[in-house]
Amino acid sequence: MRSFDVVVIGAGPGGEVAAGKLAEAGLSVAIVESDKVGGECSFYACIPSKALLRPGELLAEARRTAGVSAAVTGPLDVRAVLDYRDELIGHLDDGYQVPWLTERGITLIRGRGRLAGQRRVVAGDEVIEARRAVILAGGTRAALPDIDGLAGARPWTNREATTAEAIPASLIVIGGGVVGAEMTQAYASLGARVTLIAGGHGLLAREEDFAGEQVAASLKEQGVDVLTGATATSVRRDDSGVTVRLSDGGSVTADEILVATGRTPQTADLGLETVGAPADGYVRVDERMRVPGHDWLYAIGDLNGRALFTHMAKYQAGIAAGEILGRSIVTEHLADGAGSPRVIFTEPQVAAVGLTSAAAAAAGLRTRVVDVETDGNAGGRFSGGGGGTSRFVIDTDRDVLVGVTVTGTAVADFLQAATIAIVGEVPLRRLRHAVPAFPTRSEIWLNLFNALGL
Amino acid sequence: MRSFDVVVIGAGPGGEVAAGKLAEAGLSVAIVESDKVGGECSFYACIPSKALLRPGELLAEARRTAGVSAAVTGPLDVRAVLDYRDELIGHLDDGYQVPWLTERGITLIRGRGRLAGQRRVVAGDEVIEARRAVILAGGTRAALPDIDGLAGARPWTNREATTAEAIPASLIVIGGGVVGAEMTQAYASLGARVTLIAGGHGLLAREEDFAGEQVAASLKEQGVDVLTGATATSVRRDDSGVTVRLSDGGSVTADEILVATGRTPQTADLGLETVGAPADGYVRVDERMRVPGHDWLYAIGDLNGRALFTHMAKYQAGIAAGEILGRSIVTEHLADGAGSPRVIFTEPQVAAVGLTSAAAAAAGLRTRVVDVETDGNAGGRFSGGGGGTSRFVIDTDRDVLVGVTVTGTAVADFLQAATIAIVGEVPLRRLRHAVPAFPTRSEIWLNLFNALGL
Repeated sequence: MRSFDVVVIGAGPGGEVAAGKLAEAGLSVAIVESDKVGGECSFYACIPSKALLRPGELLAEARRTAGVSAAVTGPLDVRAVLDYRDELIGHLDDGYQVPWLTERGITLIRGRGRLAGQRRVVAGDEVIEARRAVILAGGTRAALPDIDGLAGARPWTNREATTAEAIPASLIVIGGGVVGAEMTQAYASLGARVTLIAGGHGLLAREEDFAGEQVAASLKEQGVDVLTGATATSVRRDDSGVTVRLSDGGSVTADEILVATGRTPQTADLGLETVGAPADGYVRVDERMRVPGHDWLYAIGDLNGRALFTHMAKYQAGIAAGEILGRSIVTEHLADGAGSPRVIFTEPQVAAVGLTSAAAAAAGLRTRVVDVETDGNAGGRFSGGGGGTSRFVIDTDRDVLVGVTVTGTAVADFLQAATIAIVGEVPLRRLRHAVPAFPTRSEIWLNLFNALGL
Repeated sequence: MRSFDVVVIGAGPGGEVAAGKLAEAGLSVAIVESDKVGGECSFYACIPSKALLRPGELLAEARRTAGVSAAVTGPLDVRAVLDYRDELIGHLDDGYQVPWLTERGITLIRGRGRLAGQRRVVAGDEVIEARRAVILAGGTRAALPDIDGLAGARPWTNREATTAEAIPASLIVIGGGVVGAEMTQAYASLGARVTLIAGGHGLLAREEDFAGEQVAASLKEQGVDVLTGATATSVRRDDSGVTVRLSDGGSVTADEILVATGRTPQTADLGLETVGAPADGYVRVDERMRVPGHDWLYAIGDLNGRALFTHMAKYQAGIAAGEILGRSIVTEHLADGAGSPRVIFTEPQVAAVGLTSAAAAAAGLRTRVVDVETDGNAGGRFSGGGGGTSRFVIDTDRDVLVGVTVTGTAVADFLQAATIAIVGEVPLRRLRHAVPAFPTRSEIWLNLFNALGL
């Protein structure tokens, strides 16, 4: 029986980073993967979705910028966008990802990985030993909702939507969350006629209300049919395409249908029952990413349900690896779990961290909420230009920020300032000395300080 | 004799903000301006320069982005760029700036302002009283170096360069600082053949060496002739244009010449001698922006020489106003004075805050310096794309950042995160929990944490 210090099940971003940190520290590490090294993110999520989104965003900014608009004579080159997408995802061959593992001396085992009792893992057709720890990093997959006829209508999930070889003339999207909103944005900008069935809660229901409202309004302006009242009651595919019947009695027909109504953890076949742990749902972990009652067993990334983001999977990988290596780096702060930093790459983008105003109120905090216009400063006259709102949620008892949401064009990189302010718990009376440079759009911070009379 | 609580001399950004804060607090305020309300920044510096720079930057990114490049076939529309610039600077009429003052009940007095003894100001043709305080905010003007024949050659300063009605076919720029580098970038992108005489220190001598080197290399790629060895020894204008003779024996001829070799404070005619204060050079102030020995006299903005940036003038305005209103908001930190946040809008942009590695060493700090590639992460595959370096300077004794410099395309808004980390003195062991979102270019922070083994 082969034996390793640590066995990692799942070679997505979380599993890779954990394996890498442990191997770099001198431990022997095996990583078991039944699908692609690099995971959902590299092939079917973050990477291809942003490759589909960025060109439309950039072209829109070029078209509204004086002096540049006249230089823009043509439409997006859809074939070139798809080709670049294909290049970034290695044409769905994960070979380019493997050297990162082998260079670090990590043993890659192709095949399914599952627990087989204490510190034992079935890896493909062999059983291996994990002397110190097993890290579960098997992620999630798209959940299919229980809608009459849906499964038989060959629906797309994020996988098909991010890897499509051509843009259909028309697309129905079910689900107004991150994937639904981003793919609606992408396909609309690439020329598809899109109908978004967002359900009763509207778009981006976990974010500040204005975020979903602004994205919905923008999508409508781009020609998307955004349905927020009705839900899908049945789906049929025939020669004319896919037809969705709606709860309000209407119906929609399109060439393809994308279902983006949530994720489901890949827990069922992990053998958790062989060690006496719950074998369904998200794998519950403590703040050290350990499965309670099993000091050798960790679960990181989507699988533990704390925060379904690549960056948080990598963050959790660092926590688990640190713990295994004997140096605990646990810290309690608000930019974790539901408050994790998050960016939705629609137009406008939505970048948020910490608590929404509603979540802060629900948590019983005494708060002050300050809203400023994202482009309401000199910087917004030169770049951006898509409008938007920046909301700061302040815990008035502690004089610190507990949540920030910024909407607007290309605001993704505005987020790190907010995350540092929240994680660093920098008091506002000190924060006001962090002067944003003129004329940058970061003067949203100056507007905050002015609104607070600081 | 008219009497006010506070008299502000100079209605640039610093003077305006100070007057505004004081008036909003209920004080009676007069502001004296002999030129334009809004100051150098609004008409001859920050605003028009960015209007000239942004279109070229955006077009360059569009041209190197897959799917977008094919849509962009035309050149910059120079006329449209200049028209937008003219719109932003109000066609050099400051009328649009005045309502901001009058709405706050501030009395605008057109004319020269100068001290006339304790708490007395000559404002145009009247003498007025300042019961509580006088704030000097007269700014700087371009300095002309002592080069044979220069003054007679009708050289441009920042004023002519930012407001030119047409782009000359060729331009010589003397000076490799911020203005010289930005105007070289702007005119090159707008079609001029530019020769930059940067002098012996190379470009952007106050920043990390790599910043100036990268900007110089980029300008050369754009066709600029960058001369770093030689200096100008004489200048002559005749019918064929302006000819500069160089210290290495060579010469350059062009249609126009821009001199950007520094600024000089407008101190001489301020009447400082009437209160016994030094009447030349920058006006020295303490950390409350007060002129030492005169508890009623403040100097803010360029005039005090601490940090020649609009945002720092506004920041100092807040400190002075706070002091006058009886609430001191002085804080000592490293993102002030020479360490102030600063952005140079070249291609690549340079965004820096705090100490450079050389300045930290000179200050006797024990430091660790970490360099990462600005576009060396997934986010750099979607936006940016201009390369660049991110340098983090860490005070290892205190476990905090003391300086950050980021070069790259469109990195201006990366700066606020660094400024907050430095001003907030967030320990790195805590900072590593501020997770940058994937896939954003803010993962320069993740690369930092990884390099530190955190």
